[in-house]
Amino acid sequence: DTNKTEAINALAQAVLAGERRALGRAITLVESRREDHRREAALLIEQLQPKTGRSIRIGMTGSPGAGKSTLIDTFGSNLTAAGHKVAVLAVDPTSTRTGGSILGDKTRMGRLAQDTNAFIRPSPTGGTLGGVAARTREAMLVCEAAGFDVIIVETVGVGQSETTVADMVDVFVALALPGSGDELQGLKKGVVEIADILAVNKAEGTNAPRAREAAGDLQSALRILGARPDGWVVPVLAISGLANEGLDELWQTINDFCKEGAKTGSLVARRHRQAVIWFHAILDERIRERVLAGFEDEITKLEEAVRGGGKSAAAAAEEAVSHLLR
Amino acid sequence: DTNKTEAINALAQAVLAGERRALGRAITLVESRREDHRREAALLIEQLQPKTGRSIRIGMTGSPGAGKSTLIDTFGSNLTAAGHKVAVLAVDPTSTRTGGSILGDKTRMGRLAQDTNAFIRPSPTGGTLGGVAARTREAMLVCEAAGFDVIIVETVGVGQSETTVADMVDVFVALALPGSGDELQGLKKGVVEIADILAVNKAEGTNAPRAREAAGDLQSALRILGARPDGWVVPVLAISGLANEGLDELWQTINDFCKEGAKTGSLVARRHRQAVIWFHAILDERIRERVLAGFEDEITKLEEAVRGGGKSAAAAAEEAVSHLLR
Repeated sequence: DTNKTEAINALAQAVLAGERRALGRAITLVESRREDHRREAALLIEQLQPKTGRSIRIGMTGSPGAGKSTLIDTFGSNLTAAGHKVAVLAVDPTSTRTGGSILGDKTRMGRLAQDTNAFIRPSPTGGTLGGVAARTREAMLVCEAAGFDVIIVETVGVGQSETTVADMVDVFVALALPGSGDELQGLKKGVVEIADILAVNKAEGTNAPRAREAAGDLQSALRILGARPDGWVVPVLAISGLANEGLDELWQTINDFCKEGAKTGSLVARRHRQAVIWFHAILDERIRERVLAGFEDEITKLEEAVRGGGKSAAAAAEEAVSHLLR
Repeated sequence: DTNKTEAINALAQAVLAGERRALGRAITLVESRREDHRREAALLIEQLQPKTGRSIRIGMTGSPGAGKSTLIDTFGSNLTAAGHKVAVLAVDPTSTRTGGSILGDKTRMGRLAQDTNAFIRPSPTGGTLGGVAARTREAMLVCEAAGFDVIIVETVGVGQSETTVADMVDVFVALALPGSGDELQGLKKGVVEIADILAVNKAEGTNAPRAREAAGDLQSALRILGARPDGWVVPVLAISGLANEGLDELWQTINDFCKEGAKTGSLVARRHRQAVIWFHAILDERIRERVLAGFEDEITKLEEAVRGGGKSAAAAAEEAVSHLLR
């Protein structure tokens, strides 16, 4: 209706004007899973669309204990001090929104949380990883429209969340820790392959030599594993979020990667490819939701039969299809 | 109808009796994309199901030039000589079935092609990777029901095909080649992370020392990249398909991995997890096919708009959904 449309228009204008409360309300709207909110959110995003895309989108992952929050707090504060506007978003498919977890987000990034040129938003809650990520991606677009020029999307690394985040950013940074001997800690299987930049964190004080050694070993290991198709040699930095060391180099490296990508056209190609991936991911998710609605129990029963070996995957799928799409 | 059902019953009995012509006809049926054939195939698989699952399922990948065909020809012939029945299937989403390509498969594995205890089937053609793989998976079940106790699923490594094949086998083997200096050739990005066993091929004659050195380097690199959650230390072998060297060790390593998995329960858990993944993959594919039927052009147009940046992914998906599911 007209009132709704006008309200959305007003919200879009307020977001574009950089009003902070409007930003929060717009993100709440795109995070909503209600059908009517979805339509409104689509309308909002369509209006903001021309003003999106003008940020550096940075993905960041690291196991619990890798010092991710401290790093983002310090790194983000460096950037706002240099005149940037920094938004920090999160993709955590296991999160449940409570007073505690919002408070947690503000507490664990104490400086950024009080910084007027920063905006921190915890992970949207509920739904599949695909659903959570879709809403985070829309939140990213809203932040860009509101004038944020650096977006950091962090993820804890549950299931496929790193790949999902890598599919929505320009550059993906993975954190590790120096372990004992020549081992590195906190690098999850598969993450090394999608990271554009690796950083060994907590390289402060007496840890520093060990961290630099670990970074060197990792760099050699990467060389043995072969070149990337785009020719980029993944750098391995030794940094300290706690001591604010190596973070200028990290920012420089991120910019080098993006400049290189701008020169070769790979950055634009990456964003276009991501947009198409996202279109199909959202479409599939929406179709599945609508087609499976009301049949959840039946699907669960078939899934159990398949898991136990009583039915083949194909036979179970055939049975489901014959009920769902007569 | 009754005639069809009886024909399927007879086909199932002939497959279970190990009749070779029945095996070929059964696989042709499960590879067919016709709606009526699909229903018959589901019926067939349901009858064969109790006799499936009793093989070692081996995935194998390697870039063109890695010597995959020669290796499988020799490796498979060793196994049939030791009393095994070996089926070789392929997942190649780019393949088009012609007389030439079937001939190609028979030619490139000359010994196995003439071996009565071996069965070679080229990749099913057409459709998405998911569709091709689904049909290969059903073919694997048919081969198992026909008494084959070793199934080798090979893939050339186009797009996500390695991950897809890794999701249908018990053990995934990736081939590499010794390159110049300390580099390895033929290891695609991401493959190291999903391989359970790595083998540096063409380690024959004067190549042997270089291949063994490359294998050692790769082993060190893997150690630096950290331990797997299941505790398995990925072995790196130096082998030669051409000279039939190291292939007993490869077979032993494959068996060690499976025995370890049987002991810890991870093998059964892997198969159950795979079955559920397959159920959802087939279901999603079938739903998408049915819902998108007739709208392909519109979807392509929306995809183009998204790729060019004219529409957001969410807005385009919303538009598609509103047309598809009124």
